Amino acid sequence: MTSSTQVQVKKSTKKLENLGRLLVKCPDKAGIVAVVSTFLHNHNCNIIESSQYSSNPEQGMFFIRIEYHCDNLQEKSAQLEKDFEVIAKFHEMDYNFSYRNERLRTAIYVSKEAHCLMELLWEWQNGDLDTDIVVVVSNHEDARPFVEALGIPFHYIPANKEIRKQVEAEQIRLMEEYKVDLLILARYMQILTPEFVTHFESRIINIHHSFLPAFIGAGPYERAYERGVKLIGATSHYVTNNLDEGPIIEQDVERVDHRDDVSDLKKIGRQIERRVLAKAVKWHIENRIIVEGNKTIVFH
Amino acid sequence: MTSSTQVQVKKSTKKLENLGRLLVKCPDKAGIVAVVSTFLHNHNCNIIESSQYSSNPEQGMFFIRIEYHCDNLQEKSAQLEKDFEVIAKFHEMDYNFSYRNERLRTAIYVSKEAHCLMELLWEWQNGDLDTDIVVVVSNHEDARPFVEALGIPFHYIPANKEIRKQVEAEQIRLMEEYKVDLLILARYMQILTPEFVTHFESRIINIHHSFLPAFIGAGPYERAYERGVKLIGATSHYVTNNLDEGPIIEQDVERVDHRDDVSDLKKIGRQIERRVLAKAVKWHIENRIIVEGNKTIVFH
Amino acid sequence: MTSSTQVQVKKSTKKLENLGRLLVKCPDKAGIVAVVSTFLHNHNCNIIESSQYSSNPEQGMFFIRIEYHCDNLQEKSAQLEKDFEVIAKFHEMDYNFSYRNERLRTAIYVSKEAHCLMELLWEWQNGDLDTDIVVVVSNHEDARPFVEALGIPFHYIPANKEIRKQVEAEQIRLMEEYKVDLLILARYMQILTPEFVTHFESRIINIHHSFLPAFIGAGPYERAYERGVKLIGATSHYVTNNLDEGPIIEQDVERVDHRDDVSDLKKIGRQIERRVLAKAVKWHIENRIIVEGNKTIVFH
Amino acid sequence: MTSSTQVQVKKSTKKLENLGRLLVKCPDKAGIVAVVSTFLHNHNCNIIESSQYSSNPEQGMFFIRIEYHCDNLQEKSAQLEKDFEVIAKFHEMDYNFSYRNERLRTAIYVSKEAHCLMELLWEWQNGDLDTDIVVVVSNHEDARPFVEALGIPFHYIPANKEIRKQVEAEQIRLMEEYKVDLLILARYMQILTPEFVTHFESRIINIHHSFLPAFIGAGPYERAYERGVKLIGATSHYVTNNLDEGPIIEQDVERVDHRDDVSDLKKIGRQIERRVLAKAVKWHIENRIIVEGNKTIVFH
Repeated sequence: MTSSTQVQVKKSTKKLENLGRLLVKCPDKAGIVAVVSTFLHNHNCNIIESSQYSSNPEQGMFFIRIEYHCDNLQEKSAQLEKDFEVIAKFHEMDYNFSYRNERLRTAIYVSKEAHCLMELLWEWQNGDLDTDIVVVVSNHEDARPFVEALGIPFHYIPANKEIRKQVEAEQIRLMEEYKVDLLILARYMQILTPEFVTHFESRIINIHHSFLPAFIGAGPYERAYERGVKLIGATSHYVTNNLDEGPIIEQDVERVDHRDDVSDLKKIGRQIERRVLAKAVKWHIENRIIVEGNKTIVFH
Repeated sequence: MTSSTQVQVKKSTKKLENLGRLLVKCPDKAGIVAVVSTFLHNHNCNIIESSQYSSNPEQGMFFIRIEYHCDNLQEKSAQLEKDFEVIAKFHEMDYNFSYRNERLRTAIYVSKEAHCLMELLWEWQNGDLDTDIVVVVSNHEDARPFVEALGIPFHYIPANKEIRKQVEAEQIRLMEEYKVDLLILARYMQILTPEFVTHFESRIINIHHSFLPAFIGAGPYERAYERGVKLIGATSHYVTNNLDEGPIIEQDVERVDHRDDVSDLKKIGRQIERRVLAKAVKWHIENRIIVEGNKTIVFH
Repeated sequence: MTSSTQVQVKKSTKKLENLGRLLVKCPDKAGIVAVVSTFLHNHNCNIIESSQYSSNPEQGMFFIRIEYHCDNLQEKSAQLEKDFEVIAKFHEMDYNFSYRNERLRTAIYVSKEAHCLMELLWEWQNGDLDTDIVVVVSNHEDARPFVEALGIPFHYIPANKEIRKQVEAEQIRLMEEYKVDLLILARYMQILTPEFVTHFESRIINIHHSFLPAFIGAGPYERAYERGVKLIGATSHYVTNNLDEGPIIEQDVERVDHRDDVSDLKKIGRQIERRVLAKAVKWHIENRIIVEGNKTIVFH
Repeated sequence: MTSSTQVQVKKSTKKLENLGRLLVKCPDKAGIVAVVSTFLHNHNCNIIESSQYSSNPEQGMFFIRIEYHCDNLQEKSAQLEKDFEVIAKFHEMDYNFSYRNERLRTAIYVSKEAHCLMELLWEWQNGDLDTDIVVVVSNHEDARPFVEALGIPFHYIPANKEIRKQVEAEQIRLMEEYKVDLLILARYMQILTPEFVTHFESRIINIHHSFLPAFIGAGPYERAYERGVKLIGATSHYVTNNLDEGPIIEQDVERVDHRDDVSDLKKIGRQIERRVLAKAVKWHIENRIIVEGNKTIVFH
């Protein structure tokens, strides 16, 4: 079993800056895997992990995620991407190159309830969340102390229906100022306008406190209580302009019973929300997710 | 640890005919537990297990389930029930006495898909389902062989919208002929009329192949697939005249992913449906369930 | 369904100082429930919730947990306890009265890994942990900042085999100074001496990072990795003088696969440890646990 | 969403005889994926699904599972395998070609408890188990009726320590007569000799009624009860000559509590055993498993 420990060592000694990821989506046809893997091999990229999925053998779509190792990747990446363009064009590929040492810049939006924000900050502190949390935005002051204690800028932007437009203008300005790649709504209880959502398409992750499509909208725990369900859940999804109907990334549930009142459901639910959102965010920042139609393909 | 084995022995040697159950529901007030437990004690009934629940300390409802042991219970039960009437009346109790050696008479309704029926028959064969399955009714012939192989009468009653009335008349006649206490819809794919449902109020248990209230109605697996959920579920509930909206008894889920097509979801779902329905039926026949409004209180 | 919201209101308005709990363990005999419930009724205590368990109908042990409401309980509790002595003596009862407004004084022990400590502090901050965390003890300085930030005294006591005796002497002195009722070992990686454990019998809760009895002792994640298990777990238990063999309070697991190396198992495990320990601690401080032999009876 | 239904149609219309699988294990080096995928492409095999795993980026082992489609595969397969030999030799590959329309021939061994056997037979009847169950062997007569009712040969071979040698000789003869590829021990309660196990290396799947490595050997439920665990489990693994220590394929657990005695644990456990064994068998017959050392790599 020394081999196992060996693996550990190897992994940890592997240089992050030499690790790259490639996500590809294109019409399915024969030989795509050969084309992509040969391309990488010819560029001295060694495939460490790859997962592939075809939505339909004959005429559907083809999806692949590849993690590779390449010495001096930083110097080579520009050429690598340039050379890939030809292949991509020929095979009508949507694709995305990302690099382990180039971390996404993430903003977290929160309202009064801080448990999801806290979970993300903890994971981040533990080094379990491979991203840069560059700013926290809230319509309440509650979270300021522990956010600033971690050296993360905290912006208080009061919000309500009336002032939505200027609030979002201010938020967009902030996101640009902080060069934000990903927005996480960690129980941010404000409706976003279609303009705002479109502006950050496929880059906003929300946690909804129900097992969607059950209990779309407000008061899910109250409604779960009234329906007498025996399990409650939480759902993390990309935000689109259909409320709570965006592509689902992750869901989970916990058992409840007749003795649990609404406040008990909320307590239990907080635990589910925390872990479901944390998983969804991890998969996004590790480029494990491809959105196809209104669904997600998650390469674990 | 001999004690543990001892417990086994004791349990098995305990005579079933001396075991009784009492379910009580009444307006909550001080001293109810004292009243009921003292009554039982004075009638030489020793409480083996009891669970209690108050929906609201000050002015809500009170619910209790008691299992007791009483020597020669069979001779005493009539008097016991008679004496209890006074208390019940005074405290405005809904209540129900049942006896371990008086098993419910159960009918199972099934259509083409036999997995839920099979699960119940297996559990029953193993002695894990403490009821008498007295008849199986189906609108298809498929299940006849293995039902009759177990010596259970099988009645084929073709059904469709047009002939619903006479079909149900025939079914009600059958239920009376077999003195049926409980109807289980084990994937019986016919809509029941309000008359039929009312005739067997709180005595029909259905399995719905979704995590209610998600995907009410037809084609839940197809709709789950199209929505891209990450968990699918099944729900067992009492049948009321609101489709799929009766009191939920039990629910469970399994994880699925983007590679699972509708037929995969159905395979996975069959496993969930089987165990969810079997649990709900067990709890009903063990008198563990009290229906309150549109919810169930299940005393595990 | 207004009733449901009503319940909420009621609950919240109910005065904590009028809520009491009674735990009883005694030889099982006829009429115990009647005796206890009548006693409480005669003392104007209204039973809100009760759970009971008999390890063996004929000649085993009887266990009951009762939550009750009583006006001006604080003035009456002394008399209540005094009057109960007679009954308790007659029926050879072990029993324990506790009061919702008298919170346990809890100490948390931690080493380098802070995730379990953090979980408890969060739950406590959210008001989900009904205890007073009076002191944190560690053999490392790491946790000091965020512990003191919450206004909780932090004591750094370096520890190792050689100086174990004086370390424990110092710790016992501290526990007495802080009048500690409960010690939580939140990944405290030091062996305790029999003297220390005996001094706090049934008052020390540990989290072990495996699904006991699998992987007792050191390096459970390494050994789980080497064995190639498909689920990893965590176990919370009372500490006895048999390493990792005390009465189990709670356990849970998560799925892993061949791609997860030891560091992945540790990440996943941290999530399990956090929630398993938090649950066990909650049940202890809510007086839901009775230790019987080397097992726990947990009244949920 | 019509596309989704389309997918269904396509899948079902795809001819099984044109679907092949390739499992490869070899020392990890750059370009393996390119080599294999190019080979398949050049032989007009279109990769439908592929999963890959490297135990160690620099110098570990490489594992890949590929499902492909190829017109007239039956005529081409011989040449395909022949041509692959060169590559395999050069890259020191262990590999295995299998074809969807060539189903494994499976034997099921059972003793008194039939629940695991029944589960496999049901799945098989439902068309959910893609294998040929060619014979059932038992040291009891109990299962004969329903096995023969399905037209499967049933062989009663009494067994015990004394006659083990001739019993196994008889069993091996039977396995050869029926050309058995896979042996499933569905709660077959006899110890097998090293000779027997070696004879069917990596081709015997067992279900052990505990969460291994906890409770290795006899009486796991009794011991789980005595230890007071809060979850019980089952483990399916390949049989080696170390009792209950072979490579684990799948494990699962269910929650239990203090009210569950040994007979309850056995009831609950039966449900776990059934689904854990069924999953393990499915993965084996779909060639999803590679054994590496004492672990399994399962490509879901």
